[in-house]
Amino acid sequence: MQLGIVGLGKMGFNMRERVRRAGHEVVGYDRNPDVSDTTSLADLAAKLTGPRVVWVMVPAGEITRNTVAELSEVLSEGDLVIDGGNSRFTDDALNAAKLAEKGIGYLDCGVSGGVWGLENGYGLMVGGDAADVERAMPIFDALRPEGPREEGFAHAGKLGAGHFAKMVHNGIEYGLMQAYAEGFELLEASELVENVPATIKAWQRGTVVRSWLLDLLVNALDSDPELDDLRGYVEDSGEGRWTVEEAINHAVPAPVISAALFARFASRQSDSPAMRAVAALRNQFGGHAVQSAGPSSGSGSTQG
Amino acid sequence: MQLGIVGLGKMGFNMRERVRRAGHEVVGYDRNPDVSDTTSLADLAAKLTGPRVVWVMVPAGEITRNTVAELSEVLSEGDLVIDGGNSRFTDDALNAAKLAEKGIGYLDCGVSGGVWGLENGYGLMVGGDAADVERAMPIFDALRPEGPREEGFAHAGKLGAGHFAKMVHNGIEYGLMQAYAEGFELLEASELVENVPATIKAWQRGTVVRSWLLDLLVNALDSDPELDDLRGYVEDSGEGRWTVEEAINHAVPAPVISAALFARFASRQSDSPAMRAVAALRNQFGGHAVQSAGPSSGSGSTQG
Amino acid sequence: MQLGIVGLGKMGFNMRERVRRAGHEVVGYDRNPDVSDTTSLADLAAKLTGPRVVWVMVPAGEITRNTVAELSEVLSEGDLVIDGGNSRFTDDALNAAKLAEKGIGYLDCGVSGGVWGLENGYGLMVGGDAADVERAMPIFDALRPEGPREEGFAHAGKLGAGHFAKMVHNGIEYGLMQAYAEGFELLEASELVENVPATIKAWQRGTVVRSWLLDLLVNALDSDPELDDLRGYVEDSGEGRWTVEEAINHAVPAPVISAALFARFASRQSDSPAMRAVAALRNQFGGHAVQSAGPSSGSGSTQG
Amino acid sequence: MQLGIVGLGKMGFNMRERVRRAGHEVVGYDRNPDVSDTTSLADLAAKLTGPRVVWVMVPAGEITRNTVAELSEVLSEGDLVIDGGNSRFTDDALNAAKLAEKGIGYLDCGVSGGVWGLENGYGLMVGGDAADVERAMPIFDALRPEGPREEGFAHAGKLGAGHFAKMVHNGIEYGLMQAYAEGFELLEASELVENVPATIKAWQRGTVVRSWLLDLLVNALDSDPELDDLRGYVEDSGEGRWTVEEAINHAVPAPVISAALFARFASRQSDSPAMRAVAALRNQFGGHAVQSAGPSSGSGSTQG
Repeated sequence: MQLGIVGLGKMGFNMRERVRRAGHEVVGYDRNPDVSDTTSLADLAAKLTGPRVVWVMVPAGEITRNTVAELSEVLSEGDLVIDGGNSRFTDDALNAAKLAEKGIGYLDCGVSGGVWGLENGYGLMVGGDAADVERAMPIFDALRPEGPREEGFAHAGKLGAGHFAKMVHNGIEYGLMQAYAEGFELLEASELVENVPATIKAWQRGTVVRSWLLDLLVNALDSDPELDDLRGYVEDSGEGRWTVEEAINHAVPAPVISAALFARFASRQSDSPAMRAVAALRNQFGGHAVQSAGPSSGSGSTQG
Repeated sequence: MQLGIVGLGKMGFNMRERVRRAGHEVVGYDRNPDVSDTTSLADLAAKLTGPRVVWVMVPAGEITRNTVAELSEVLSEGDLVIDGGNSRFTDDALNAAKLAEKGIGYLDCGVSGGVWGLENGYGLMVGGDAADVERAMPIFDALRPEGPREEGFAHAGKLGAGHFAKMVHNGIEYGLMQAYAEGFELLEASELVENVPATIKAWQRGTVVRSWLLDLLVNALDSDPELDDLRGYVEDSGEGRWTVEEAINHAVPAPVISAALFARFASRQSDSPAMRAVAALRNQFGGHAVQSAGPSSGSGSTQG
Repeated sequence: MQLGIVGLGKMGFNMRERVRRAGHEVVGYDRNPDVSDTTSLADLAAKLTGPRVVWVMVPAGEITRNTVAELSEVLSEGDLVIDGGNSRFTDDALNAAKLAEKGIGYLDCGVSGGVWGLENGYGLMVGGDAADVERAMPIFDALRPEGPREEGFAHAGKLGAGHFAKMVHNGIEYGLMQAYAEGFELLEASELVENVPATIKAWQRGTVVRSWLLDLLVNALDSDPELDDLRGYVEDSGEGRWTVEEAINHAVPAPVISAALFARFASRQSDSPAMRAVAALRNQFGGHAVQSAGPSSGSGSTQG
Repeated sequence: MQLGIVGLGKMGFNMRERVRRAGHEVVGYDRNPDVSDTTSLADLAAKLTGPRVVWVMVPAGEITRNTVAELSEVLSEGDLVIDGGNSRFTDDALNAAKLAEKGIGYLDCGVSGGVWGLENGYGLMVGGDAADVERAMPIFDALRPEGPREEGFAHAGKLGAGHFAKMVHNGIEYGLMQAYAEGFELLEASELVENVPATIKAWQRGTVVRSWLLDLLVNALDSDPELDDLRGYVEDSGEGRWTVEEAINHAVPAPVISAALFARFASRQSDSPAMRAVAALRNQFGGHAVQSAGPSSGSGSTQG
């Protein structure tokens, strides 16, 4: 079948290629003419025979919302737009309503797989109407990994469910990464464990903790055994934050996912105001740290 | 080669079978005569030609220490004992010293894989002398999964390093499990996601969070889609606790692993003394909860 | 001076009394005629000489917003409305804009003190214009505790700063309460500490942890030494949630405040879906719990 | 009555003074001759009339244990030693046993108050036999704050209970300090709150969060409003660690106290190995950060 793709960045570029390899005809648009198949969204619409399916793969938030608004101008009744970006699930109702004014359908699709998706396929979770899902299934089948469909694709639920599921997926990912990271640091700290990379590599088969993320950690350690080429400075994207916010909205305890998020925040602070406050308090009650030493051999202070 | 195994419980029973399948001769001892190949540790020693290798697979702590002490009586100089149980790494120096009095060698081996190890093989991490590791390599090769040796086996370091690595492995496992669990609960809480088991199943291929634990969660949801057959009551074994204690000893922040451990503690409390204290405080300052209502429409309290 | 108060619940009722005791003339409105001085907001406005100052003390959110909207109908240019409830600080811009349409001023005021405020006075933090703050100062002085003004009152900053500061105050309060609560539970768990209430009572003077909350805990233990009359079930109001959300919005690590919030969420669950998922995973890999026992003396499983 | 004090550091020096002010005769020993009243422990013993009471106030651990051992040589049957340092409660049984060999009694006493104790008095929690507690009561009365005895002194329980209670006290203190610190950082991060020191100062009267620690924070902000003179680098002493370890030993969830402890650990890391591991994982799956940019306008990655 035919597919339009808007946004040919790292993700969209590879997805166009994967869908093409599956034998579909893809027209891609990007504002970068070097990668674009077409000069404008209107041109993209003109190159597709209706009813059209257009996949949006641009940065979440304002850019996605604007792209959807522009598509509502150039597409026609009966067409279908799929937002495959990392939009917050609360945007989906807005986007769907905008398109519904023109009789255009909408699906939200969470996509996982990163730069490895071109070869491995992408994990997909979709929200919206079953009939729309059915219509786009050849595309979903092209994008998802080999193997049983249900192991790489789900119709998760109503409008927004795809992005909600992807948000939770990423929240889990924060927790998983931090769990491995804490274990790595503790192995590094041990005077007994002499070969940390070999120890972690040995977890790849047979163990309870084997996973794709573990494989990636092994990859990283293969080329940089102490991870010395990196700084412990970690950005976060929206999903980790949104996951904790939704946990709060639903009164779901999320101690692990929030701890992972806060560890990222802290990693970006060269000096923590909070810890300055703790230091200030210790100074106040105990004469800790720099303060004048006083008589020698006795117990300095009994406070923490 | 020959191997003695002491302890034929769920783990040892399967390990005897896996080593036998690899073509080795195994003599197993268990105090349960139905599964034991021999009537006593002395008999086990008699049935093996020296220098002997004996694998201990009994509950960690006192039972393992006693077993090692008994083995020191029946084995001979030049023999080798491998503790494959979940001993705390601090026990390894004690066990090794006990055996060294008789000139018997000692290795500590962390074993991961659970009931699936018989078919999949066991992930192995070993601590001790390289020569002893080399001597037992045919047994390690029999137990570890198919594939490159280094992906299922590591000589992690000095005496104790095997159990230290296994301890950290299990600490990570606590964090991973809790991350998936929090995600599961949040999906369940969402009014958008209508098919939670299908959503999680779709993470098995292509996604960043795919893992063996995820596969197990899918298995569990296949037979019990709401996990209604279980109570949210979770025991912990020693390793999670030891991991947090070692993190503290090494001043390694472990917010995720400790949060996972504390979630287990809390899961076993029908009524939390701490939360009774919080409730008591709220009562004190705000007249929250049951207390007499007072004038109607106004703001009850401005406290938390 | 004159003051109108809207909302005579537990807080507003006492505040009317405290302001009256300071010699001001107060007209209170509540939809409950038993406590109200007047029959309607219009009547309240009529009973005050302009320029009027009206203090709103009704439940946060819709009720406060509606009350402000109604006040904008009955008040006049040059009047001043103070929202002393626990509104989210993001509501203040909306409320202020609504009133500004009519030339009516607006201050947001966080109020702390609970049922003890009538006698002790209320801690006050205010957001808005300095001139408006100055105008209402006699009322703030009446409400705040005895002692230096700056120890019980602050003009915290711009519009919204009062409620933001109160939100943070309550977030801190969550952390403080949970810290005491964890300590209480650990004392209770100790076999050495035979008199927990006496131990906590002894912290009231001289120690680093002495505080008003500690005094309240002592009060509670005086009447119920084991806190047996309470269940460990704790509600949360908006501020704890908002504090964590704002921490996330500002990339501020808040591990303690969020842990305190999640402990409250967990306290309200009779059975945790997350912990059912952890239990399910343990069953899957280890044959833990109920599953058939297998051979006797061996090590059950080496997993966590 | 008479009292011997061993250790005249910041704490012991002030305690000698406070006991003297109460009218007791105190002989202090310190290896620093400038502050010592006597030249040796033997000399200290000789200067006191039996049955003697000797207060030990030296650094916890080996130094305290050695001091107790030395005292067992120079004291006599019927004398009493009180360890007022921050010993781990598990040391108390050892110290008591050592002294019991000579018929010397032993009490463990947790002391809180820091450098402010000289004027304010010290909060005291004691473990051991009631008769010994009674014997030393004049000294406890001299050291504790003015006011009712039970608000600054408790006989907490058996041998070790005093240090256990002090350990928990300090664990709570970690949580309290971190709660205020997180709130401080969030206020600092707000664009609405223009006067953070004034806002915090206004919490001193009337509010739910008023406390001695809050007063200290106000002191610190008075002299350094942004806390710019300090680095966010915070040591920890033993008690925070021990509290979490005991929480684990008793299966008591301690998310807040442990989070406060881990925040201190993290504050001392200029670069976190764990966060390097998280950064490495992000690089692996997403081409995040520095990696080559690829086509322009599209969505970079959909991972976290």
